[in-house]
Amino acid sequence: MAQAAEPPSGTRDFLADDVRRREAAFAAVREVFERYGFDPLVTPAFERIETLLGKYGDEGDKLVFKILRRGEHEASGEADLALRYDLTVPLARVVATYGSQLPSPYKRYAIGPVWRADRPGKGRFREFTQCDFDIVGSSSDLADAEVLATVHDGVRALGVEEFTIELNSRQVLFGLLQAYRVPSELGGPVLITLDKLDKLAPAKVVAELVERGLAASDAQALVDDLTADDPDVIRARLDGSEQGKQGLAQVDRLLELTAGLPVTFAPRMVRGLDYYTGMIFEVSAAGFTGSIASGGRYDGLVAALGGPDMPAVGGSIGLERILSQQAADATESSGLDVAVTVLGAEQQVVKLAAELRAAGLRTGVYLGSSGKLAKQLKWANAQHASYVLLYGPAEQEAGNVTVRDMTSGEQVSVPFDGVVSHLRAAVENA
Amino acid sequence: MAQAAEPPSGTRDFLADDVRRREAAFAAVREVFERYGFDPLVTPAFERIETLLGKYGDEGDKLVFKILRRGEHEASGEADLALRYDLTVPLARVVATYGSQLPSPYKRYAIGPVWRADRPGKGRFREFTQCDFDIVGSSSDLADAEVLATVHDGVRALGVEEFTIELNSRQVLFGLLQAYRVPSELGGPVLITLDKLDKLAPAKVVAELVERGLAASDAQALVDDLTADDPDVIRARLDGSEQGKQGLAQVDRLLELTAGLPVTFAPRMVRGLDYYTGMIFEVSAAGFTGSIASGGRYDGLVAALGGPDMPAVGGSIGLERILSQQAADATESSGLDVAVTVLGAEQQVVKLAAELRAAGLRTGVYLGSSGKLAKQLKWANAQHASYVLLYGPAEQEAGNVTVRDMTSGEQVSVPFDGVVSHLRAAVENA
Repeated sequence: MAQAAEPPSGTRDFLADDVRRREAAFAAVREVFERYGFDPLVTPAFERIETLLGKYGDEGDKLVFKILRRGEHEASGEADLALRYDLTVPLARVVATYGSQLPSPYKRYAIGPVWRADRPGKGRFREFTQCDFDIVGSSSDLADAEVLATVHDGVRALGVEEFTIELNSRQVLFGLLQAYRVPSELGGPVLITLDKLDKLAPAKVVAELVERGLAASDAQALVDDLTADDPDVIRARLDGSEQGKQGLAQVDRLLELTAGLPVTFAPRMVRGLDYYTGMIFEVSAAGFTGSIASGGRYDGLVAALGGPDMPAVGGSIGLERILSQQAADATESSGLDVAVTVLGAEQQVVKLAAELRAAGLRTGVYLGSSGKLAKQLKWANAQHASYVLLYGPAEQEAGNVTVRDMTSGEQVSVPFDGVVSHLRAAVENA
Repeated sequence: MAQAAEPPSGTRDFLADDVRRREAAFAAVREVFERYGFDPLVTPAFERIETLLGKYGDEGDKLVFKILRRGEHEASGEADLALRYDLTVPLARVVATYGSQLPSPYKRYAIGPVWRADRPGKGRFREFTQCDFDIVGSSSDLADAEVLATVHDGVRALGVEEFTIELNSRQVLFGLLQAYRVPSELGGPVLITLDKLDKLAPAKVVAELVERGLAASDAQALVDDLTADDPDVIRARLDGSEQGKQGLAQVDRLLELTAGLPVTFAPRMVRGLDYYTGMIFEVSAAGFTGSIASGGRYDGLVAALGGPDMPAVGGSIGLERILSQQAADATESSGLDVAVTVLGAEQQVVKLAAELRAAGLRTGVYLGSSGKLAKQLKWANAQHASYVLLYGPAEQEAGNVTVRDMTSGEQVSVPFDGVVSHLRAAVENA
């Protein structure tokens, strides 16, 4: 197998079973988005380069795949187009392009590939599918609650049963800083350190906070309260600051609107500081490290990405993460319902296959050159066929078809004209 | 609307109705391919540049979108990757990559975007979807017949009812040249001219043939016979040459194997001379200029494109052409089943929406800031909602929900707990 024949580094070919599994997953979340009244959106694979660059920071810009100018401009070595890096910048562009032609609020979902020139690694690809849903143009708490309900149903539709939606808000985080007298210039670094409480021992987090410049006693109190079993400890502290109170009220309102869903208040959860403006969430599930979905409210982002100034809230489901987990325990490949051997009488055989297909049965006809039954049965077996049809000289004379059940090995003789209904019933009852 | 906000030249954004229409079309052909036992294949958007260049001729190479090297190599202005130009080269690469891991024969379909830096124009895009199905590894006539049957069912599944599959073969074309004593070096140009009989007057075609170097009497005889109403004229001439006889036998065999399908022998139909090796076909339909599907046998192509030397036969359905025709008479946009207004009692409203969604109803909740019913009804109307729910103070007190049928304008009062079953029944019976 020549090296050159592999797909490009960081990309994947999806053969039959993979495509079917992925398409089924896409269809399952699509169905959820549709039920919630989200509209699908498909944008081009590439955008003008100026639409993309400068939106993801210097590190992000380096990961954008740039497309060379064409024709006489090719020699310039310049790029004028670039492959989309995410589905959010195209959304902002679409909101700018179509404005009032879009429903208000604009609830859209998008499931499609994005491209990043990241160093390929385990579970890290240069072409991967994102699955985003967003509500642009609503500041309502109901929109926030709807996003949480959608992510809940979406994750469940992908077959993940046990999971928690961790909820927090920017206001809670600001309140925390206020309540524990964190100097405003240390706010960002302190929150980033607190976010590590999942992975690091509390003492290490305290040490890092002190290193960041926090007073040792404040750092210790903050970590103690955040790791306390009783969530009321942190609630009581938040109640002591204006922003903390606002944040708590917002969280409690959302907990109320999502009653019945596995949503929990996670006061130390931090996400994309320069991105989110209101509620934030992460979904963690048994068997997965890290989150399998996340999102929040990002009222300034559409404008920052070149769109109009509109409030927005949304989420992203980690389809690839969930799919790669499922691939580990993937089921058997789906095969043919019926494999039709060819032992003469080709015209009748082709007609029979046409009728089986018209009846909705997944039917393959032997297309090889061997007239030997053994070889044809080997083919049928490799196709994971449920049933094999034999129509050799003896059957042709008698006007019958031999139907072999490939699971049980049993054979029955069925009149030629009754084969389609016989097999349809057999496949339906299987 | 800023110019910069438009999608890049030659590309399109697909908003809700377009996406739904396109996805429905993709699903319809996919279902046909699956019934015929074809397997789906998805390959990356880009390939190594050396995989693509040199496969489409000089003109084709110019239309390939090339991706700039990244990181320190970006300044070189060189490209190492390129967006796929069709789905055939990736197929050849996959056959080379996976070899015996693939089923034999390998029947695959692919529906996905390809990119060409063509000059954009009416119906000509730089990003468009191709829909290919191919059988690699079978030389059987049954494979040829299966491709014809598949294209028939595929085109029908896309809603095209009246169409003809024009069938020819390379051997018939060679036989024609032999029968009419066309010097071998003129073969190619003569066939290209004959292919114009669809568009040009016979006299003009004769003139062009003479210009090409054919004797005037031969040119006249050739055109007369090809345009004769009686197909037996051309059959008789073909019978006089060895290749012509072979070609006729092949065509007749396929006509036999596709009995019942609208397949007709089209002796003057020429397709991709340096490409196809056996049967060729084109599908023409009422209301379309040019073909809406085409294909043939191309036994040398997989090897020429860098794959192993394997026989192959396949076809391509002009999805974009068919879709653009349908767009002209597109139906109304699909809206919400239920629009839920918000007049207080938000927690109960959200719960009701969750239940409606769980029952499979496409449900939207008013997410705006207005408490005025008129404004909320306007929103429901813009969402093309079939039913609107009102749960204001009076309803809350009575434990009822007002259900307004947006088509008839009628309103009924339904107990809160009976709303879901009431609406499910109403939507199902609509």
